[in-house]
Amino acid sequence: MLTETALADLAALFGTRLSTAQAVLDHHGQSESLISAPPPWAVVFPETTAEVSALAALADRHGFPLIGWGAGTSLEGHALALQGGVTVDFARMNRVLRVDPEDMIAVVQPGLTRIALNEDLRATGLFFPVDPGADASLGGMASTRASGTATVRYGTMRDNVLGLEVVLAGGEVIRTGSAAPKSAAGYDLTGLMVGAEGTLGLITELTLRLHGQPEAVSAASCAFPSVGAAVDCVIATIQTGLPVARIEFLDAATVAAVNAYSRLALPPAPQLLLEFHGSPAGVAEQAERFGEIAAGFGAEGFQWADRPEDRNRLWAARHQAYRAILATRPGATAVVTDVCVPISALAQAVAETTEDIAASGLTGPILGHVGDGNFHAILMVEPGNGAEAATAKALAGRMAERALRLGGTITGEHGVGFGKLPHMAAEHGAAWAAMGRIKRALDPKGLMNPGKLVP
Amino acid sequence: MLTETALADLAALFGTRLSTAQAVLDHHGQSESLISAPPPWAVVFPETTAEVSALAALADRHGFPLIGWGAGTSLEGHALALQGGVTVDFARMNRVLRVDPEDMIAVVQPGLTRIALNEDLRATGLFFPVDPGADASLGGMASTRASGTATVRYGTMRDNVLGLEVVLAGGEVIRTGSAAPKSAAGYDLTGLMVGAEGTLGLITELTLRLHGQPEAVSAASCAFPSVGAAVDCVIATIQTGLPVARIEFLDAATVAAVNAYSRLALPPAPQLLLEFHGSPAGVAEQAERFGEIAAGFGAEGFQWADRPEDRNRLWAARHQAYRAILATRPGATAVVTDVCVPISALAQAVAETTEDIAASGLTGPILGHVGDGNFHAILMVEPGNGAEAATAKALAGRMAERALRLGGTITGEHGVGFGKLPHMAAEHGAAWAAMGRIKRALDPKGLMNPGKLVP
Repeated sequence: MLTETALADLAALFGTRLSTAQAVLDHHGQSESLISAPPPWAVVFPETTAEVSALAALADRHGFPLIGWGAGTSLEGHALALQGGVTVDFARMNRVLRVDPEDMIAVVQPGLTRIALNEDLRATGLFFPVDPGADASLGGMASTRASGTATVRYGTMRDNVLGLEVVLAGGEVIRTGSAAPKSAAGYDLTGLMVGAEGTLGLITELTLRLHGQPEAVSAASCAFPSVGAAVDCVIATIQTGLPVARIEFLDAATVAAVNAYSRLALPPAPQLLLEFHGSPAGVAEQAERFGEIAAGFGAEGFQWADRPEDRNRLWAARHQAYRAILATRPGATAVVTDVCVPISALAQAVAETTEDIAASGLTGPILGHVGDGNFHAILMVEPGNGAEAATAKALAGRMAERALRLGGTITGEHGVGFGKLPHMAAEHGAAWAAMGRIKRALDPKGLMNPGKLVP
Repeated sequence: MLTETALADLAALFGTRLSTAQAVLDHHGQSESLISAPPPWAVVFPETTAEVSALAALADRHGFPLIGWGAGTSLEGHALALQGGVTVDFARMNRVLRVDPEDMIAVVQPGLTRIALNEDLRATGLFFPVDPGADASLGGMASTRASGTATVRYGTMRDNVLGLEVVLAGGEVIRTGSAAPKSAAGYDLTGLMVGAEGTLGLITELTLRLHGQPEAVSAASCAFPSVGAAVDCVIATIQTGLPVARIEFLDAATVAAVNAYSRLALPPAPQLLLEFHGSPAGVAEQAERFGEIAAGFGAEGFQWADRPEDRNRLWAARHQAYRAILATRPGATAVVTDVCVPISALAQAVAETTEDIAASGLTGPILGHVGDGNFHAILMVEPGNGAEAATAKALAGRMAERALRLGGTITGEHGVGFGKLPHMAAEHGAAWAAMGRIKRALDPKGLMNPGKLVP
């Protein structure tokens, strides 16, 4: 708990932007995972880097933990106050500070969401491509090293964050990276902070790499006779070097759910959704080449979506797949898992996972960013049903172990948080201890988002 | 100096692969920079990770520094034994361990050079794209976060190293990353080690991302009425999103040197050299679109090199530009500098640098990977002429300061080593101290390449 003096110091710093109202605490004590944790002791809403710095100094003096909060969309309990502490909600630090079209960069605050940024950018001819589906905050996306549907073409947050301003434990403010496209000047602190999940500091500003809005965009869907055929088609497409902008897999159960929820009429079979970006001629050529590859794997039922409204409808349906799946069992909740394997192991990983889920008795549609070797299972659980929750958790655990056995990683994009912590030793071995040494070097008192990521 | 027992322990471990012969020590006491340092106390040639690990344990016990050595091509004195110690020459760890065409990765030892790797890959239809010009070792390239002519399309070593095996101070061996295309599982230790210049550990194995050999390749050169016009053409090309594979700038002095040295007949004016990769139709479209952009900036004298032998001749000439420039003043040596700025500041940075060099009385042709905002000056110095060396050093220093003033970085690809150390505080401020904390966490005794990169 916070001492009287700590609370008084927080009140002096944040005034009415400090809250200990139960509703506010409870809101920040929930997550999109099944992990339960007590709510934080207090929530603050900073407006400036100086306030975050002063807050970190207070935390250091009084010894209370700090947990960053963006849009609350993380899936492994990243923003839960597992050991108590003060949640730092960046909702009021949500501005676009600068857009530089010549250098194709935007400087933004961490509470800004990706959709808000792209709305702001619309007239510039540029866009920010990392698209995890949820309208996550950019600070949160950087902290979890998020990626998503367009990563096969444009990369993850690792590739699209050029620089950061970070408040370290104790309150020191550092700047990492620069506006230059590359640098060889010392340790890549930007890369270290991206994916650190707030355990090394709080991100207060991001310099993001923007991309030109493609001149032409074309989207398509097509059905395959089997999961294996669809996945093998992805592998062949990637190996050909075809620069697909998105290549998403939906299994038959996901397709059925999406059809019902978003009133689409996709054939009830394993499906790929694609998008091509480029010049009009380039897009046409890519689509033609993909069609040839896909035909070799038995693809049928091509549906093209060249008009923006049709494309938007298709991708909205993809992004609502989670909700569509939940709607197939009213009242259900779900464990959303995330693994990533080498492309060559993707078909095996999906096949074994499908069998494992079928044998468990749970419903668990599979979908994913298969161009990256990354896929998810939405393991449906009746709220309050402990047996189902335990089965789902065990399935997710076996997916992580399977990914490691196949040369992959326990998480492609959701991050570690608390949920994947039990698998970190298996993935990293002695390197996990090295992460702990870095953590202690930058946060000796263990106040930055404790209980996550490191040993 | 090494104690008798330390030397005996080294001899027991390496046998005849330990050398204290003066010629061997002297060879490892030199560099491509003007930085002078005493030779190392001994040189070892390990053949296995286990030997490197045992060596690091010995170094820890006896307290002697370890300095990695690849091909000796680094430009800022990275591999000099500034504080004495044992140089670890990876010449005997130069094998390709595995190529996986399906996953488009290669697992290699650090002493392998990039040209040797690409020769090995030739039949696979894949290639490794990072091309710094020199035939550097891949361990060295990772350590300096090297990039080069193809980075505008394929990225730097940061983007093309998927995982590493690293021997830490004390001898612990860690593995970072995986064969999956992406991961969100904890701190990006791969990214931290890439660019760490051997100050956090010795790289003993690399998992590299390969790319498909392009179906079609086309190269071109064209001349511009001024430096500004050439640079502005690059800016416009990048902003259009044209996926050029290479876009290199040569100033008029470089063109004259290259013409003389490589018997080319490029027009004696500021020049861009380009390469396009893609499908035959894609390459033709890119070339046409570039031609339209370039015409708007007064480009003339287009020379196309579609045949492999013509292309190779053009790029061999580009890669020999350093030697070509040295040959314009027989017996001269040079300070090769490296800065990188935001694209929008590139024209100003090149113009101010050109003026500064002209005013100094030195000859210093300018060339660079301008698609990345990265350029070099080859500052010619008469050997033994202290005044010229001091002038060159001062010019290089002002280039670094100018890059920072324009929002860039003191080095785009050569790294810090010892040469750029004086500018690290100006670039990073408090973040440099954070680098020092990470260094001390992983190398508390300061034995891994001491005197470089960190405070």
